[in-house]
Amino acid sequence: MTIKDQAKQGIISQLIERCALDENLDPKILVQAVGAGEVVIPHNRHVHLSRPMAIGKGISTKINANIGTSKDHPELKPELEKLKVALDAGAHTIMDLSTGGPIKEIRQAIRDACPVPLGTVPIYQAAVETVERRKRSICEMEVDDLLRVIEEHGQEGVDFVTIHCGLTLKAMEHLRLRERVMGVVSRGGSFILEWMTYNQKENPLFERFDDILAIAREHELTLSLGDGLRPGCLMDATDGAQVHELIVLGELTVRAWDAGVQVIIEGPGHMSMDQIPANILLEKKLCHGAPFYVLGPLATDIAPGYDHITSAIGGAIAAAAGADFLCYVTPAEHLKLPSLEDVKEGVIASLIAAHAADIVKEVPGAIEKDRMMAEARRHLDWKTQIELSIDPEKARLYREEGGEYHGPTCTMCGEYCAIKTYQRAMRRGRNALKGNERK
Amino acid sequence: MTIKDQAKQGIISQLIERCALDENLDPKILVQAVGAGEVVIPHNRHVHLSRPMAIGKGISTKINANIGTSKDHPELKPELEKLKVALDAGAHTIMDLSTGGPIKEIRQAIRDACPVPLGTVPIYQAAVETVERRKRSICEMEVDDLLRVIEEHGQEGVDFVTIHCGLTLKAMEHLRLRERVMGVVSRGGSFILEWMTYNQKENPLFERFDDILAIAREHELTLSLGDGLRPGCLMDATDGAQVHELIVLGELTVRAWDAGVQVIIEGPGHMSMDQIPANILLEKKLCHGAPFYVLGPLATDIAPGYDHITSAIGGAIAAAAGADFLCYVTPAEHLKLPSLEDVKEGVIASLIAAHAADIVKEVPGAIEKDRMMAEARRHLDWKTQIELSIDPEKARLYREEGGEYHGPTCTMCGEYCAIKTYQRAMRRGRNALKGNERK
Repeated sequence: MTIKDQAKQGIISQLIERCALDENLDPKILVQAVGAGEVVIPHNRHVHLSRPMAIGKGISTKINANIGTSKDHPELKPELEKLKVALDAGAHTIMDLSTGGPIKEIRQAIRDACPVPLGTVPIYQAAVETVERRKRSICEMEVDDLLRVIEEHGQEGVDFVTIHCGLTLKAMEHLRLRERVMGVVSRGGSFILEWMTYNQKENPLFERFDDILAIAREHELTLSLGDGLRPGCLMDATDGAQVHELIVLGELTVRAWDAGVQVIIEGPGHMSMDQIPANILLEKKLCHGAPFYVLGPLATDIAPGYDHITSAIGGAIAAAAGADFLCYVTPAEHLKLPSLEDVKEGVIASLIAAHAADIVKEVPGAIEKDRMMAEARRHLDWKTQIELSIDPEKARLYREEGGEYHGPTCTMCGEYCAIKTYQRAMRRGRNALKGNERK
Repeated sequence: MTIKDQAKQGIISQLIERCALDENLDPKILVQAVGAGEVVIPHNRHVHLSRPMAIGKGISTKINANIGTSKDHPELKPELEKLKVALDAGAHTIMDLSTGGPIKEIRQAIRDACPVPLGTVPIYQAAVETVERRKRSICEMEVDDLLRVIEEHGQEGVDFVTIHCGLTLKAMEHLRLRERVMGVVSRGGSFILEWMTYNQKENPLFERFDDILAIAREHELTLSLGDGLRPGCLMDATDGAQVHELIVLGELTVRAWDAGVQVIIEGPGHMSMDQIPANILLEKKLCHGAPFYVLGPLATDIAPGYDHITSAIGGAIAAAAGADFLCYVTPAEHLKLPSLEDVKEGVIASLIAAHAADIVKEVPGAIEKDRMMAEARRHLDWKTQIELSIDPEKARLYREEGGEYHGPTCTMCGEYCAIKTYQRAMRRGRNALKGNERK
């Protein structure tokens, strides 16, 4: 039985119990949500994750950090360092998107070092092997090879895989009907599209979806149904191509659930703020409540170097509106492969967005963290403020950089600290009041 | 006549013409908005600003950068450097919040170097002079001294001043009625509160509002009515004290307008995302459409070191909901006086929030910038992408850090670039289609 099968039968496994504990949730509620497909717990059958994660409705928003080599940076070591930085900063899941160097060995090394759910995009490996080993173009990728790679990822302990099944011939028509400014910006989506146009055939991941479900079932792979047609700029957001693909993903969701396979739906992308809540609603309706995993969304296109901020804005709005899972975006997005520092900044920005949204979602314990920070601030208790910070290291550094002055306040206001002044005033006010009462 | 008087009479001055040009707006529309108080153009009578700014409804969202010395960092030079950094990064206005060193000389030096509207908080100087020169406590600040300082700022060319007139005895009762976690976190607000509790008298800035209006009228000072009771943490947001003060500010707005004085209303602060739109609506209703100037709002309290991000989230939502003017928050907020780098990061984060909101507000030309960036990305035109970036310097640096690889794509995907793959696929698709048509 799969995790979903068990949950449908109401069986409270150790995995359910563990995740319910982490979420301060009654296991009975969690098992019901997993059974209904509203929450997923990506967890490959062949591994034991020391830090499993539940993702979906009614629980805290999760964030994913992408790492992985590229052809220009094929070394394993920096990626293992990024893994550590991402985990230390608080990433809830990791995706290995390697396309350079020995992809299989890199994935295995990352898997071994990764205690949280690990995701991949198998078509990257299939495409790179077609080009590098077989010396063919991506168009000549063999469908059986693609399925073999998915199976390999399942056998080797990957917890969730992105599969671009929704980019169908019909969806392609929408791209022709209304030309986009940016076209297709999903790497996997563009590979599939090239294959389809060259071979003049339907998307093989759509055609062979039942075979993919069999693999997913066997290895307990959670399917993250990719949005190959996600908008790559604000101008392209919420168009026919994007929404058509989402409808297809909704149909495939039902088929996956019937096969006992867990499903996540991937979403935008680049999108102006006002369109975000409608997009979340669309996903929740068209995909029957399956968890929504958004890449950003980036609220503007004009800030390369700061896309951790543009996507913190979009991600916070998305999560507050019901998105369940945020893919981080680093300051390096659109410019280069991220550095260690970029990875950390990306994780922190996403965690801020997720937490700001969890307060709105009324996730148990979320606002409590803010209350504790406010209490520590009222007492000018710097030690506790730093401990409660989302990044204690940076908070401590900044506090110390304040210079020679290490009094109870900070170098912004010094003795003119509003908190101190207020407390003095209110004490005096109370005493004056008492004096009046005695009169 | 004041700017507001002239505008009420429909007189299109050079200042109106200049600002209308900057905003791509018909001067007739702008003059009407200034006359109605929905837009302000802070511009002291005794100066000529080479870069005046209109702030308010129907035009682009503006952002302010706070600079200024503190007792622990009283030197002028770093603050002049911050001024340059803030202006270079794109700040639309500057506030000098100096409380350390020779405040008057510092302000004059900043004024001389500042081509955009300059704001101050006169009570800081009055309080510091009471403590440092007169060796008295803030409670013993003389009301006439306070008014003299406001007048001095007017005489010396300050364009807008924050005055905490709304923190009345009645508003204080609300603080006692429902105790806050953080109390009062506005520095000026806390000074007034201490003065009121010590002297057991009404807020002198409220009592002497007509005198303040006379000064403002004489020197063409725009009044930025301060929110001394703004929430300092999420738990304190949208409470009786805050809303009571806002009601008072609305009453004072009408009195100021009747006196021909321009008004800005200051707002929160710390606030969960879901409360922000209601707070904007409240201000617009209670203050009769006067421009709203928000400090953040910070969408969570738990991220010291990253409050440029927490407030970019809140600021974007606020501006999209109708806030007109964002006060930047730097990564140093809550920890220390900001460094040069902090100032730059604060300005950029606020500009991102403002621009993301301007797209939603349908400000003329806003989305056009995103469209141009998308076009440059489609063509892998890196030169144009960098030029169009909100911070070309950082974008260029990141692009160059991409390493030895300087092909047409970037080190994220290299030859597996989705944009290239898509274009190849669509060319092939079109050719195949043409082939079919010929058949």
